[in-house]
Amino acid sequence: MNGAEALVRTLSASGVEVCFANPGTSEMHFVSALDRWDAIRCVLGLTESVVTGAADGYARIAGKPAATMLHCGPGLANGLANLHNARRANSPIVNIVGDQATYHRPYDPPLTAATEEWARPVSAWTRTVETADAVSTAATEAIAASRAAPGSVATLILPSDVCWDECGFREPTAAVIAPPAPVDENMVAEIAAILASGEPTAILVGGAALYGSALQRAAAIADHFGARFFAPSQIARMERGRGRPRPERLPFVLDQAIAALAGIRHLVLLGALSPVAFFAYPGKPATPLPAGAAVHVLARPDEDLDDALARLADRTGAPAKAAWSSSPRLPAPRSAITAESVADAVAALLPEQAIVVDESVSFGRGFYGRLHDAAPHDWLQLTGGAIGSGIPMATGAAIAAPGRRVVNLQADGSALYTVQGLWTQAHERLDVTTIILANRRYQILLGELKNVGASIGKSALDMLTLDDPAVNWVKTAQSFGVEAARATSIRRLSSLMAHANSRPGPFLLELVI
Amino acid sequence: MNGAEALVRTLSASGVEVCFANPGTSEMHFVSALDRWDAIRCVLGLTESVVTGAADGYARIAGKPAATMLHCGPGLANGLANLHNARRANSPIVNIVGDQATYHRPYDPPLTAATEEWARPVSAWTRTVETADAVSTAATEAIAASRAAPGSVATLILPSDVCWDECGFREPTAAVIAPPAPVDENMVAEIAAILASGEPTAILVGGAALYGSALQRAAAIADHFGARFFAPSQIARMERGRGRPRPERLPFVLDQAIAALAGIRHLVLLGALSPVAFFAYPGKPATPLPAGAAVHVLARPDEDLDDALARLADRTGAPAKAAWSSSPRLPAPRSAITAESVADAVAALLPEQAIVVDESVSFGRGFYGRLHDAAPHDWLQLTGGAIGSGIPMATGAAIAAPGRRVVNLQADGSALYTVQGLWTQAHERLDVTTIILANRRYQILLGELKNVGASIGKSALDMLTLDDPAVNWVKTAQSFGVEAARATSIRRLSSLMAHANSRPGPFLLELVI
Repeated sequence: MNGAEALVRTLSASGVEVCFANPGTSEMHFVSALDRWDAIRCVLGLTESVVTGAADGYARIAGKPAATMLHCGPGLANGLANLHNARRANSPIVNIVGDQATYHRPYDPPLTAATEEWARPVSAWTRTVETADAVSTAATEAIAASRAAPGSVATLILPSDVCWDECGFREPTAAVIAPPAPVDENMVAEIAAILASGEPTAILVGGAALYGSALQRAAAIADHFGARFFAPSQIARMERGRGRPRPERLPFVLDQAIAALAGIRHLVLLGALSPVAFFAYPGKPATPLPAGAAVHVLARPDEDLDDALARLADRTGAPAKAAWSSSPRLPAPRSAITAESVADAVAALLPEQAIVVDESVSFGRGFYGRLHDAAPHDWLQLTGGAIGSGIPMATGAAIAAPGRRVVNLQADGSALYTVQGLWTQAHERLDVTTIILANRRYQILLGELKNVGASIGKSALDMLTLDDPAVNWVKTAQSFGVEAARATSIRRLSSLMAHANSRPGPFLLELVI
Repeated sequence: MNGAEALVRTLSASGVEVCFANPGTSEMHFVSALDRWDAIRCVLGLTESVVTGAADGYARIAGKPAATMLHCGPGLANGLANLHNARRANSPIVNIVGDQATYHRPYDPPLTAATEEWARPVSAWTRTVETADAVSTAATEAIAASRAAPGSVATLILPSDVCWDECGFREPTAAVIAPPAPVDENMVAEIAAILASGEPTAILVGGAALYGSALQRAAAIADHFGARFFAPSQIARMERGRGRPRPERLPFVLDQAIAALAGIRHLVLLGALSPVAFFAYPGKPATPLPAGAAVHVLARPDEDLDDALARLADRTGAPAKAAWSSSPRLPAPRSAITAESVADAVAALLPEQAIVVDESVSFGRGFYGRLHDAAPHDWLQLTGGAIGSGIPMATGAAIAAPGRRVVNLQADGSALYTVQGLWTQAHERLDVTTIILANRRYQILLGELKNVGASIGKSALDMLTLDDPAVNWVKTAQSFGVEAARATSIRRLSSLMAHANSRPGPFLLELVI
């Protein structure tokens, strides 16, 4: 058995079922081993940004890692932006990068690059394997590292000779996943006292407190004590929709975030980081927190959130769950195209247990609030600000959840980063409905340019608009084998969305806004 | 004046005329400064891989750097693969990356990443500027570093507050470019003796010895002494065509390279690196050089190649130039589609002073040899093995050379990495003819898989073929505003190429092979 086959068997033994891949010459033995040992599904991405973004989307829904297969340093580099997003989402990924043979690397052939240096900043664990005998142990460690709470990118670099050399091999056992650490009881007591104090308090939940019993418990506690209840601006995965808790999302726009938190004396963090401004702006504060507000960490993202909440409920007498009222689902509107009417149409037509991928950027800031009463769904969002995550994330989520419709609310400028992902959706016949919000400009930057007080002349406008020529999204999608159509009214949007969701396979809907 | 305006004025004072850009929020002051000071042409790329690849193509033709404008660490990351190619081509680029404000970075907002760590491996010079007052000096140093022989990527990281803060400013003077160092006369004498010895010798020319008087001199010396005359497998820029020297190109395929160099006793390097195998293969050598062959460095890439050659000619009595016979231009063939007939059709129809961008990968290995007798042209090639360079490189070359037709011989799998570059060609009305060589598979990898002795089963085939669905390149191009048509015969290829080259603006030709 060679190193590549040992790798594949080790991945399989620890429950890795999918490999998102864009292989090159140095990965041919890995490809061959996957071919011979067919327990792992291989999904081809036409660029590495699709590969890593899909691995992120898969991890968020599957709750476990896929493997990637990337080609040398430059292949890794192409995937770094979506690995950055995955890192910010705490998505587990076993990120596998093939590379030059150990003995050939010193010759510095043209494709040699800084593979390990580039991988480290996005990876909680990084190793270049030096011998075939070391592959299986390293892969097991990588899987364990990726799955340790709250989830991380673990990068395994495999020189080609390490893949093709013969190795001794024992049947691997599954990686042992460290359980999340329990929260200190003193901290639970401190938070209980704050909640009981009646002082204006907000609970900000993130990570694993955005779904399952943890979300239910957190919402019930907030409700019990009348505390404000927030989700972060960037949500990796959240369970939402009718009958589920509905935390406010902290606004992306700094002034709005400041307004949302005004008057708060205590901010309790539960698997979330303390909020900061996405960017600095001249003369504005670095965080939206009111001066003098105290931040209390009930549980870090890597700690046992559900257990901490159960203990907090025990201590305070809060219920484990509350009933959440919600308005009935409304029919899709027939009004003009606005952010509100688009959101309402999507809410009306969202299938049960859909997965919503939101990379709607500026146009879609109001979508979150208006989807509270849609059918129950998972909500995934761009987490690291590196645009181009939506199409790949929708692709990976669909691989993780056969039978569930993925609806990707997708800004056009961001979609152009990773449009190649549409081909994978067609190739794999994935149930993804992509709604391109085509405003044909970088609207967010036109706003930011005004924010900095600059006048907008020809050169600036030329760098921020996409209407010369306007991308024909219907042709783009069709060229990659995805059925597509254009809508210029809410009525047409609704009928196309109903059509798209009623049939198997991908569909792209260009909504001219 | 703020830091951003100081930057723009400094770039302009040193002759930087073009900025390839994909801006974000942290670059808004830079955008605004470019808008107010309109000496620099801004060219938008829809992804950063287009931006950096275009800067590479521009530098190869213009012989001087463009600036880039990238958004934070992830924006840089998206551009790293083509910066890797640019580094391998010794292309001068002033690579400008906006980033989080100096005082905001410690808060670790979501888009914060390892900007400087990611930049260093591709950059000969890297600096994060900390104050607005330091911007102008740093930019001047970056330009000088990028232009020092043989040319490099210089990365200037600009936190947003450094751009918006006011600064003291004196009108900048142009960056002083260090001249290339002269070669030691002892080395010239040593090479003269080797050439005079009559022992089997090859001269391998690279860098600035692939064009202008250096190429003429080198070819005349090789001719005078009956030495073999080679160009590297990866050519950054070469002047070719009727009446010009015609070095053999070292084959990419290792066994062929070994055969090409068989019998050589001395290899003289002139601005080129000693040849190595592109990848390691089990049981094959690391370099194609015969055992016992001696390698002599007449001049490193950073030394004065033309001067070294002039002195070598003086010392040996070789002429400065020779007349190079060439066959007459042949009409385009009307045969079946083969690598040879495609090359002959391109050769027949290539416009005078065209720029050929070759990312034809496996199908086009014979193109080089068959274009010896085409009209005089520049030949640019993928240099670092990071595929996805062709469309951006053609875009940048066209910006550098208005009035010259760029012909991009483009493999389909590689084209899919950076297909977004077609939009920039349409937006800027660039005279680029893209010929997509559509074999609908990663042919090179199917070959490599066979080379490693692996059987090719369903999973492997699925990762190496692109025909389910086949990309419709005509629609892809049209969706980005580029006129396009499909050819399934050499006759149709010829008529479409004649049409494409006779009209202004971009054209894409899908050749089904």
